Amino acid sequence: MRKCAKCSEKGVIYLPQHRLALCKTHYLEWFENRVEKTVKTFSMFSKKDDILVAVSGGKDSLGVWHALWALGYKVDGLYINLGIGEYSELSEKKAKAFADKIGRKLHVVSLKENIADIPTLKELQDRPACSICGTLKRYYMNLTAKKLGYSVIVTGHNLDDECAVLMGNVLSWNIEYLVRQYPVLEEGNGFVRKVKPLCLVSEKESAMYAFLSGIDFVEDECPYSVGASSINYKLLMSKIEEESPGTKLRFYLEFIRKVRPMLAIKKDLHLRPCQVCGEPTTSDVCSVCRLRMRLENSKAEMRRDF
Amino acid sequence: MRKCAKCSEKGVIYLPQHRLALCKTHYLEWFENRVEKTVKTFSMFSKKDDILVAVSGGKDSLGVWHALWALGYKVDGLYINLGIGEYSELSEKKAKAFADKIGRKLHVVSLKENIADIPTLKELQDRPACSICGTLKRYYMNLTAKKLGYSVIVTGHNLDDECAVLMGNVLSWNIEYLVRQYPVLEEGNGFVRKVKPLCLVSEKESAMYAFLSGIDFVEDECPYSVGASSINYKLLMSKIEEESPGTKLRFYLEFIRKVRPMLAIKKDLHLRPCQVCGEPTTSDVCSVCRLRMRLENSKAEMRRDF
Repeated sequence: MRKCAKCSEKGVIYLPQHRLALCKTHYLEWFENRVEKTVKTFSMFSKKDDILVAVSGGKDSLGVWHALWALGYKVDGLYINLGIGEYSELSEKKAKAFADKIGRKLHVVSLKENIADIPTLKELQDRPACSICGTLKRYYMNLTAKKLGYSVIVTGHNLDDECAVLMGNVLSWNIEYLVRQYPVLEEGNGFVRKVKPLCLVSEKESAMYAFLSGIDFVEDECPYSVGASSINYKLLMSKIEEESPGTKLRFYLEFIRKVRPMLAIKKDLHLRPCQVCGEPTTSDVCSVCRLRMRLENSKAEMRRDF
Repeated sequence: MRKCAKCSEKGVIYLPQHRLALCKTHYLEWFENRVEKTVKTFSMFSKKDDILVAVSGGKDSLGVWHALWALGYKVDGLYINLGIGEYSELSEKKAKAFADKIGRKLHVVSLKENIADIPTLKELQDRPACSICGTLKRYYMNLTAKKLGYSVIVTGHNLDDECAVLMGNVLSWNIEYLVRQYPVLEEGNGFVRKVKPLCLVSEKESAMYAFLSGIDFVEDECPYSVGASSINYKLLMSKIEEESPGTKLRFYLEFIRKVRPMLAIKKDLHLRPCQVCGEPTTSDVCSVCRLRMRLENSKAEMRRDF
């Protein structure tokens, strides 16, 4: 490993796309500067905002929480317990330990208490678990942030996540999804502002930050995510990146800067409050309330059968 | 292999993205229909046009020549001998034999006689061989078509070629190149119309057509193309296609139909005739004439040294 570009220490990480070797101290500084620059470039939030980080217990969400806390932002955490056995229990424990360590609040929402755990819902629905889980996480993130008075929700999506989603949307040229792909989803229509401060750092950079910051994070992937197509796109992108460092960053940033503004935006989605829970939806009853109704019906049927 | 979808014969090919098994006779018919439909959809040319197919001696260019000839179009061939040793000699021989077989003319242009062979030019320039070769092929295709009075140039680019180029242009979001990516490049400004009738058939489909038509084509790739990035994008696209048949066709067609029209087109390139040869160029002297001058200078220097 080369020497750190900023001091005479031995480098601990080399960033090929930036042609930069850095020691531990300067890497942590570089990472936090990059996060802060991203926050400012996309006008995500300020030091006055009450920010809620959606944490899974993994390197990205705990890392972004740590970086924003270190940068002096007011950030609390929200852990949504999905009820996926030991994976969820361990994740919650690590998230709680981290919150205690930095002395910030961690709110916990249990899917089991609010609707049903993911294994139960997966049984009920013929949809991929990731799709159900995504819907529910977005719903409870938004609901909780509003209820507790947070003005911004932070998620830990990194550059690799964003590139994989972008690749999927590009391969099918889904204009509606492409237009929504941006580091900031504005507030309004019942939605709290949602931002991705890690969108310009790679998965490897994020893992290295969490590791060097001494964060005790969950290393296992969610058992339901195995074979999900976004993971395959990640592998493909990594291969291209290996051969040509900087490809991911250019692919994402040039899309955001040059191409996205050219895409014709569809008319408003005609969002209205769900007739059951009041959360924003495009139909009369939102997908989470429909899921809940289906669950109730299935329980009633089971009772009848006995 | 399943039975042919059109008769009771045993299928020889299965097309997963079309969910279609076909026998030899019906596959050749399917392929030619698909080529004709592509020609008509994009208004490429009519039976009145004098068409020149740029042939390399490979499956795609000889295949498209065969299909257009079988469909009753007036198509002659142009072989540009690149002077790449045995590879070029064998390719020319196979192109000539094919022309004789279908009773059409094959024009031959030798790079060595007109400027210099690719190995010599590669020595002279610090550019990838494929880039020099592409420039020269486009130049002599256009020049020859005009000189001989052909109104359309056909190239054998297939869906895999187009997807690999599209993927490269998408990864760097090169808008100028993206806008140019279309099955037809219109005539004008000194350029003959250029079209790609195989743009909606895959490499595998094209190879199968050439094979089942009994065409004796060159199977080796050009020795200079090994490791070219477009080939790696082909491998990546093939992996995605394998997991999700139809991805390539959708990626290309949806781009052409939906996205390309949204991209802001740059102003005209201000093409003007080259002051040396008169072919269209964006500078005073075209890149081929500059290459020729450089070659002359290098020869003069070598003479001085002796």
